[in-house]
Amino acid sequence: MHKYIRLANTLRYSGERISNGIRLSCTYKFNNDKHNSRNYSPSLILAATVSSFLAYKFYKNSKYVYLKETQQHINTEKYGAYQPNLPEYSLEEVSKHATKETKIWVIFRRGVYDITNFVEEHPGGDQIMLGAGNSIEPFWLLYGVHNQIQIYEILEKMRIGNVSEKDAGESIKDMSDPYDNDPKRHPILKPASLKPFNAEAPLSLLAENFISPNELFYVRNHLPVPEVDISTYELEVEVEDFKQFQKHTITATIMCAGNRRSEMSKLKMVKGLDWGCAAIGNATFTGVRLKDVLHKVGINEDSDYKHVQFEGLDTDSTGKSYGASIPFWKAVDKKSDVLLAYEMNGKPLPRDHGFPIRVIVPGVVGARNVKWLGKIIISQNESDSHWQQNDYKSFSPSVDWDTVDFKTSPAIQELPVTSAICKPEPGSTVKVQDGCIFVQGYAWSGGGKQIVRVDLTIDGGDNWHVANLDEQDSSSPPQHWSWTLWSAKIPVPKEKTQIDIHVKAVDSDYNTQPEHFKNIWNLRGVLSNAYHHVPINVKW
Amino acid sequence: MHKYIRLANTLRYSGERISNGIRLSCTYKFNNDKHNSRNYSPSLILAATVSSFLAYKFYKNSKYVYLKETQQHINTEKYGAYQPNLPEYSLEEVSKHATKETKIWVIFRRGVYDITNFVEEHPGGDQIMLGAGNSIEPFWLLYGVHNQIQIYEILEKMRIGNVSEKDAGESIKDMSDPYDNDPKRHPILKPASLKPFNAEAPLSLLAENFISPNELFYVRNHLPVPEVDISTYELEVEVEDFKQFQKHTITATIMCAGNRRSEMSKLKMVKGLDWGCAAIGNATFTGVRLKDVLHKVGINEDSDYKHVQFEGLDTDSTGKSYGASIPFWKAVDKKSDVLLAYEMNGKPLPRDHGFPIRVIVPGVVGARNVKWLGKIIISQNESDSHWQQNDYKSFSPSVDWDTVDFKTSPAIQELPVTSAICKPEPGSTVKVQDGCIFVQGYAWSGGGKQIVRVDLTIDGGDNWHVANLDEQDSSSPPQHWSWTLWSAKIPVPKEKTQIDIHVKAVDSDYNTQPEHFKNIWNLRGVLSNAYHHVPINVKW
Repeated sequence: MHKYIRLANTLRYSGERISNGIRLSCTYKFNNDKHNSRNYSPSLILAATVSSFLAYKFYKNSKYVYLKETQQHINTEKYGAYQPNLPEYSLEEVSKHATKETKIWVIFRRGVYDITNFVEEHPGGDQIMLGAGNSIEPFWLLYGVHNQIQIYEILEKMRIGNVSEKDAGESIKDMSDPYDNDPKRHPILKPASLKPFNAEAPLSLLAENFISPNELFYVRNHLPVPEVDISTYELEVEVEDFKQFQKHTITATIMCAGNRRSEMSKLKMVKGLDWGCAAIGNATFTGVRLKDVLHKVGINEDSDYKHVQFEGLDTDSTGKSYGASIPFWKAVDKKSDVLLAYEMNGKPLPRDHGFPIRVIVPGVVGARNVKWLGKIIISQNESDSHWQQNDYKSFSPSVDWDTVDFKTSPAIQELPVTSAICKPEPGSTVKVQDGCIFVQGYAWSGGGKQIVRVDLTIDGGDNWHVANLDEQDSSSPPQHWSWTLWSAKIPVPKEKTQIDIHVKAVDSDYNTQPEHFKNIWNLRGVLSNAYHHVPINVKW
Repeated sequence: MHKYIRLANTLRYSGERISNGIRLSCTYKFNNDKHNSRNYSPSLILAATVSSFLAYKFYKNSKYVYLKETQQHINTEKYGAYQPNLPEYSLEEVSKHATKETKIWVIFRRGVYDITNFVEEHPGGDQIMLGAGNSIEPFWLLYGVHNQIQIYEILEKMRIGNVSEKDAGESIKDMSDPYDNDPKRHPILKPASLKPFNAEAPLSLLAENFISPNELFYVRNHLPVPEVDISTYELEVEVEDFKQFQKHTITATIMCAGNRRSEMSKLKMVKGLDWGCAAIGNATFTGVRLKDVLHKVGINEDSDYKHVQFEGLDTDSTGKSYGASIPFWKAVDKKSDVLLAYEMNGKPLPRDHGFPIRVIVPGVVGARNVKWLGKIIISQNESDSHWQQNDYKSFSPSVDWDTVDFKTSPAIQELPVTSAICKPEPGSTVKVQDGCIFVQGYAWSGGGKQIVRVDLTIDGGDNWHVANLDEQDSSSPPQHWSWTLWSAKIPVPKEKTQIDIHVKAVDSDYNTQPEHFKNIWNLRGVLSNAYHHVPINVKW
């Protein structure tokens, strides 16, 4: 039995009862074809196809790695190059080594590698087995995080041979970059990674506006941006259906779990994008409430479900979607502001932010605010996606990749309180005016909590100065979704020429931030919310 | 118009519409008399009466102050004693000095004091004006917190004269101790103050039981315990009415905002009871849901109110009740577990814990869990009581009694995450077994959040050990009301003979505790949730 719910001028939902709940799948209709439940852009189809072939030609600039420390592009051609002292293997021979029992071999460029002992240590989990007995390059194309000198070095240590001359010649195929169709971005965005594209605005711009402009809103993508053809898409407008759900607008801050990771990684390396303090933004989102849509298919707060799963239209090289889930009560609660949003700051959602529909779960980590929404599953179970089960979790500082058991920690949902100084910039020289320096920044806490105080110190906590809370949403906890922009004039003692400004925030549950990264360090570098500090020079 | 709701075998509520909402007032019926809306025990009536007289005879042992540091009772007779070098004033003369314009004089024993300049600094606020032009002793009887050497010293510095011989002789009257009718307590409870009675169990006993026994549950009273005559009370049983509301039981942890204050006050003095780590307990509470009662008088989650105020039957010397309020949504939310509780751990509420009815607001600071419930007011406004407006709030570490403005901070509701080591005790010698020491304790977070991890370190955070979470409530956030009892076996390096164990907890919003008290210090010593540490000796 199918119940169709027309949600907006963009999507059609079909309600279909499955064993563990109700599955709402989204159908896009195109001019020339109909794809049931998911549409692949041409480049994505290609990426999914070539993953079972060998492909030696890396994408543009792939042989270079950008080293932040030295600001240089390092040529990586030596990795995977032919080594005359090692044996040669045919592709067929390599393909026989695809299980633990037979040893696990992979190919990178001309190199053959035995990764048997590395499989369990692989930060990305079982995904590595997709390359077993075959080339790993398609996956490295998709997960740009591999494009690091350290990772090339790790791989090269497992080198056992070369791909035979015959097969190497034969198997060189062209491969399109799955990221070729990503949207153009504003050049001011500072990328933490290019493929997938992850970037933040300059911190000094961040606190300029209570509402973050779309073009400067931090981008956190896990996979290539799916392509939805807007010209054909518009043919689907069905105004009557669209009107049946009440349009709802909220202003909400979204933050990546890895925001401020770079401060934590200075202490000890962590796995993850090297975010600064600007993987956070505040925008007005318009759409329909998820609870209204669920109500239409007979689901309400009395229904016996535990989780709501979301799947994106962005897929990995095996066709698996990005996925996440939130507790059921959050979606159906009378006060729930969980949105299926189709507008951001009054404009259609930009592609980088989930066009045509993004789930907005205010107060909850960005990773659950699934973009390019493709499917909603009401379930007894959490999403089984990598990102819900084996990522976006935190651990004790002493847990490392040898001892981590992802089952022991809950998936991050609501985020703890945090704050950052946006101006002045670290290392800058600031003129003292009327004996004071002027400091600006943001503070935010997840779960609908409001910032009630921001404290600053320039003497290591001997004296604290209370900031002025300049801009706040007028809503009350537990539905206070926006960040707080603050500023402070801090008096500087006459003799000082260098100071280190520290900030901490307090939320309406009176939770506050931990002082140091040492005691909250975790191998994924998430929830990096210790005091932010900015050392500056002062000029009198 | 009055609507009567019979709530239990104990109380009768009358619903009466007032300007700012619905007022539910509670009526006790006694054998020999009927008191509308509030019953005063004889001792309380006396206290209220004598407050307008002079009274020189202090209650039993009042001339002694117990000094924790030296464990001695100090005789305080010299304070307020006749001083031949100072002028004498008649009672009539003193009574003319009761405003700022005429100067504010008060009497203590034979002493006359000019407190004009102190009034604004008085930590108890305007209450001090109750004694203007008169004796302050009745109030000091009621607020035992004044019985401290420092306070006697402060007062004596404002000394200007003596009460005249004639009036001193005349005005010496007997005064009953308003605390005479307080219940007997278990002698193992360690008082933070005797009048009002505030006490905690020994910390080493605290983590023995997931459910805290009634006799050992920490007691936090602000005023004398009101007396309700159970024998006459039982005549009010009306079983049919009682049955109309569904009986509901929750297990919830209640914690005082000042729990662990003694650790903060070591850094710099704070105002408040010198609580250890045991002003917290976990019990099963049974009663009826407040939302069911409100629904009966036509109030539900769609009603346009902002706050629910509670008043206790415990009153100060002017007849003013203890009062507090919580946000309206908390009381009427579909998931609300706010209870009008009449049982604690399966037994009628003990007198110290609010007999016959106590409001249980799980996840929220103890101060809003009003005992001896006398009145419920549904309102647009917060309670205007001293305890809601000018107490139980927190401030920046640099705010002192000269600069504090209570209006700038919100009343504490949900409490932040905290934890404590219950065993071993500080300074004790612990035998190392199998290379480890065994540590036990509790962790809790307000707002229905669950403890997800407890970390321990014995080397200042270089290595952290994850504790075993031994006992937890099975409910999920955001309705996880109970604490978590944990234990850990920590390996001790061979060479160590002294170690300092530190603990921190992480809750389901991934909030964690601040490291040091320095940066969360506040003048009221509330929310004292920095890492708890216990230095011990180890024996091999």
